[in-house]
Amino acid sequence: MKALLIICDGMGDRLTNGKTPLEAAKKPNFDRIARDGVTGLVHTVAPGVAPGSDTSHLALFGYDPCECYKGRGPLEALGENVKLEKGDVAIRGNFATVEGGVIKDRRAGRDEYGLDELAKSLDGMLIDDVKVIFRKATGHRAIVVFRGKGLSAKVSDTDPEEVGSHIKSSIALDNSQEAKRTAMIVNKFTEKACKILDGHKANKERVKMGQLPANAVLGRSAGISEPVVPFGEKYGIRAAAVAGVTLVKGVCRSVGMDMISVEGANGHRDTNLKGKADAALKALDDHDFVFLHIKGTDEVSHDGDFEGKKRMIERIDKEVLEKILKKADLKNTTIIVTADHSTPIGLKRHSADPVPIAILGDVLTDDVKKFDERSCAKGYLGHIMGRDMMNMILDLTDHSKLFGG
Amino acid sequence: MKALLIICDGMGDRLTNGKTPLEAAKKPNFDRIARDGVTGLVHTVAPGVAPGSDTSHLALFGYDPCECYKGRGPLEALGENVKLEKGDVAIRGNFATVEGGVIKDRRAGRDEYGLDELAKSLDGMLIDDVKVIFRKATGHRAIVVFRGKGLSAKVSDTDPEEVGSHIKSSIALDNSQEAKRTAMIVNKFTEKACKILDGHKANKERVKMGQLPANAVLGRSAGISEPVVPFGEKYGIRAAAVAGVTLVKGVCRSVGMDMISVEGANGHRDTNLKGKADAALKALDDHDFVFLHIKGTDEVSHDGDFEGKKRMIERIDKEVLEKILKKADLKNTTIIVTADHSTPIGLKRHSADPVPIAILGDVLTDDVKKFDERSCAKGYLGHIMGRDMMNMILDLTDHSKLFGG
Repeated sequence: MKALLIICDGMGDRLTNGKTPLEAAKKPNFDRIARDGVTGLVHTVAPGVAPGSDTSHLALFGYDPCECYKGRGPLEALGENVKLEKGDVAIRGNFATVEGGVIKDRRAGRDEYGLDELAKSLDGMLIDDVKVIFRKATGHRAIVVFRGKGLSAKVSDTDPEEVGSHIKSSIALDNSQEAKRTAMIVNKFTEKACKILDGHKANKERVKMGQLPANAVLGRSAGISEPVVPFGEKYGIRAAAVAGVTLVKGVCRSVGMDMISVEGANGHRDTNLKGKADAALKALDDHDFVFLHIKGTDEVSHDGDFEGKKRMIERIDKEVLEKILKKADLKNTTIIVTADHSTPIGLKRHSADPVPIAILGDVLTDDVKKFDERSCAKGYLGHIMGRDMMNMILDLTDHSKLFGG
Repeated sequence: MKALLIICDGMGDRLTNGKTPLEAAKKPNFDRIARDGVTGLVHTVAPGVAPGSDTSHLALFGYDPCECYKGRGPLEALGENVKLEKGDVAIRGNFATVEGGVIKDRRAGRDEYGLDELAKSLDGMLIDDVKVIFRKATGHRAIVVFRGKGLSAKVSDTDPEEVGSHIKSSIALDNSQEAKRTAMIVNKFTEKACKILDGHKANKERVKMGQLPANAVLGRSAGISEPVVPFGEKYGIRAAAVAGVTLVKGVCRSVGMDMISVEGANGHRDTNLKGKADAALKALDDHDFVFLHIKGTDEVSHDGDFEGKKRMIERIDKEVLEKILKKADLKNTTIIVTADHSTPIGLKRHSADPVPIAILGDVLTDDVKKFDERSCAKGYLGHIMGRDMMNMILDLTDHSKLFGG
């Protein structure tokens, strides 16, 4: 038996005019999986805990985020396919616009013109004996990696996350020499980067074109990744992932899944859903476990867009689930649909509300006919914890190992 | 968003003639919270564990009682507003009547005449270099604190909890010198106290008036309190508590909540419920979280009084909930009603049966229309653990912190 796990980011919700987006959407294929399968609710990290997409995916993959989550920086780096070495400090960066020392735009107007070239001008910089690896990421984003001996991730952000403020000095978050030295290096980098970017011809062109110059780099979420037992080794299966958004790609790479690229899978609401579904189906040919991630549901939630979320769910139903239910070998494939967390429309942020799950396969079915929060609450599975989900999937697909005699 | 948590002590129950007191009571306001809100069951400490009101409240406040519960003595002391210093051994005391070395009444006839004066005669006593702080508490109760270097709480009770027995000698419960010494000091205190009380003029007056003399002190539940991270710091909110009963006041003080006094809030079935409701509503003005505790439901349960419990629930419905639902700003206040444990009428003691919970606020409502044990078992929340409740409340009131990126 194979398994196809489909996670729709931030899909869970609360009530808007008495309904959740899942309750309001027309989604016959989601409902078919609930009706013909088994349902329940998942607390992805723990009851009452509002998780990020990084910690929630780690938990759903069976890795305890309290132990193995080392910050968002290294996961973003892995997501952009930056190879990390032992002890590398990875930071999420933004190209920003600074005027007279004050932040005018945290995203340099979101325009990507010249950013590749600007990124190259910072890549390879040496600060004392520490090498800077600098990569442009999606949009205005960047990855900054500090490589050298005796660095620490216990340093504060330089991004004040506020327009009108000065870039913050990074400070050590503990008393170690390593943290103090790393903070000093981060600050030197910020200063040098400003100088290099400010005089760069790509920025002169941007200004000439009426765009904001990308003349500063703001950094956050420093982390040093630590290796975990790879997914394949942990579970004795071959796993692949189809994901568009950098952070989730990073989580998948950090646990050693095979990453499958899909043209137009951009992590946004206009992503290439059909292409992702096809890629996931194809990956089932030579993998035991395929993970398909869809980000759009979270994006519309952060925008507080109820109708957009409803439409996104309907698109997933039509372009992903209908195709998968038609084309997958359902006799030999267990299909799991769920979310990594709720992002209620009314809050525009992640919440701790548990998310619905439905599993189609060799399962004990229940009376639930609809795939939504309140229907699945009545399902056979009850409330389950994210950390238990992989073991349940392994057991349902005949990959579990007996514990005991 | 603010939160008002109402805990009715020992309200959960089993069946008496086919119904629980909650099922038998007429309580439209409890039912409204269930109907318009979301429901479930709470295992306050853990499934199968019958908790005291101290351990259950600690768990519901998000403190692991297995780690931070240090015995009832220090909590009772804090409840009576006795300031404890590091290393103080606090013991719950009873004024009792002893005749010829044998306990005649464990509560000295429950008459308080002269007890203040008798308490003063014991306060400040020195035993070796250990100082005794002695305070009369509610009724026949007292707080005994031993202050000095190198004391231990690992000493046995002197209260045999049986009329007709001798006062027990305290013995060390481990092999440490500290425990041996502390037991010796407790025994010297018991002996000295008997001598002082026996000859005291207040006791002569009691006897003249036909009352039993309060001529002995029985001790139990020695403990040394250890500081915990204060509630406000742990959760980043300002919290207040309205409670009448000493033990629960002690728990609230031990976690650093602001304590609000209410005239006539005595922890009994004739407590000033309206005054407590008013105080809780007022406290919401300048606190993010208000805890309202009502003891009466537990008192009637220990008496095995089904009709009394039903009436107490109906009084709470009318005098507390009706007022709160009318006067609170429900748009900006999440209301939570639950219990700290069950005290089944048929048992007259605490049990491990989970307790119903209902939450009115920005929640996913369910089909449950009644607030009682069996109705709430069908609720959307399912079975939750007491330790998770605070995180859920924080998340529902927009005070949760994202875990991850």
